[in-house]
Amino acid sequence: MAILLHDLCGVGDRRFSPYCWRTRMALAHKGLAVEARPTPFTKIGLIAGGGQKSVPVIEDNGRVIADSWDIAVYLEETYPDRPTLFGGPGGIALSKFVEAWTFSAIHANLIRLIVKDIHDRLLPEDRAYFRASREKRFGATLEEVQAGREARLPRLHEALAPLSETLAKQPFLGGDGPLFADYIVFGPLQWARVISPFRVLPPPGDPVTDWFERCLDLFDGLGRAMPQAV
Amino acid sequence: MAILLHDLCGVGDRRFSPYCWRTRMALAHKGLAVEARPTPFTKIGLIAGGGQKSVPVIEDNGRVIADSWDIAVYLEETYPDRPTLFGGPGGIALSKFVEAWTFSAIHANLIRLIVKDIHDRLLPEDRAYFRASREKRFGATLEEVQAGREARLPRLHEALAPLSETLAKQPFLGGDGPLFADYIVFGPLQWARVISPFRVLPPPGDPVTDWFERCLDLFDGLGRAMPQAV
Repeated sequence: MAILLHDLCGVGDRRFSPYCWRTRMALAHKGLAVEARPTPFTKIGLIAGGGQKSVPVIEDNGRVIADSWDIAVYLEETYPDRPTLFGGPGGIALSKFVEAWTFSAIHANLIRLIVKDIHDRLLPEDRAYFRASREKRFGATLEEVQAGREARLPRLHEALAPLSETLAKQPFLGGDGPLFADYIVFGPLQWARVISPFRVLPPPGDPVTDWFERCLDLFDGLGRAMPQAV
Repeated sequence: MAILLHDLCGVGDRRFSPYCWRTRMALAHKGLAVEARPTPFTKIGLIAGGGQKSVPVIEDNGRVIADSWDIAVYLEETYPDRPTLFGGPGGIALSKFVEAWTFSAIHANLIRLIVKDIHDRLLPEDRAYFRASREKRFGATLEEVQAGREARLPRLHEALAPLSETLAKQPFLGGDGPLFADYIVFGPLQWARVISPFRVLPPPGDPVTDWFERCLDLFDGLGRAMPQAV
């Protein structure tokens, strides 16, 4: 039976959540069949009988697992004979660092570049919740947060320096092939690609941009099949 | 026979090189006997018959290996039955990212806080070389580069955010115990501790500071045995 993934969706069945993309890629990496069920923000509380506060959530043989990190560890432990997501215990421990770096270097910069674009591509029923919760978090309107983003793009590119340097030396963070660490970083960049027409990556030829294209090609173009926002 | 480590030294046999400290910790992690031979900057060219441009360099059973990364990989391959430095192939790949992050987040900030202090604790024969090469690199005098460092300390602490977040969740970057990734980050912080009276770490209680103290305690206090600069 396919694993059920509760997957955040916007208008036109756009799947954009950075955390759901981590899980989508991890499931594909393990070669597991998946039903990625569209879930609006305002329906997260109804998932699997209730009590969930965020996505992704998966259901696998009656087990309910939330949180993209916990799901990856669950998949690694439950399906050890399939391709590894971590490449050993050192890979698990250091993926936690990649996750923390991704949050401070990418998410924190990226959200201020695309937050109004996210709002505009949400299902109508989700927009009021999203605007209220994010405007409270930022202490500013979505329009104010996103304004002047061109001037802030260099800060994101500077923050990508260690990623760029690493990917100049090896095709994936995981080495010759991708690991979950790659999907941790891919998630927010795919988020931006799918939800915002504002191009956040450096020009082609930059190691990060070229790596992102390689990630889009993985698993028969799973990531690329979700259209870029225009 | 003990492995010979050519180890940068300052006045009073102070061992301060961030890269040599990576190797010193890696050798101790593997439980290998070591002779850490003091080497001034201006004698690096005489190591192992000549041709070396930087330290660390090790000599092990007639083999000469340079570069702290290459030495760690050599030790892992040559002594596979001793405690692992990487925890598997994922750990090797992601340690490259930790190395790139450490360079941009720590080294690049730290050198501007302590460069004049380094100069002042070098052997007299090394000082002219160090001043000329670093002033050329920075396009400013050592005094100018270091001036106003108190105001730049918050930038270093901000850059440590992903490290701090990770170490709030696990005792070492490597997980329950240290891996080479820990020594990659430990190196520049030990560099600052040994060569400069300027305290660069956040106050005790910060996860990074507490982790650094744990690193100083490893291997019967190998790192702590090198006195803090006053």
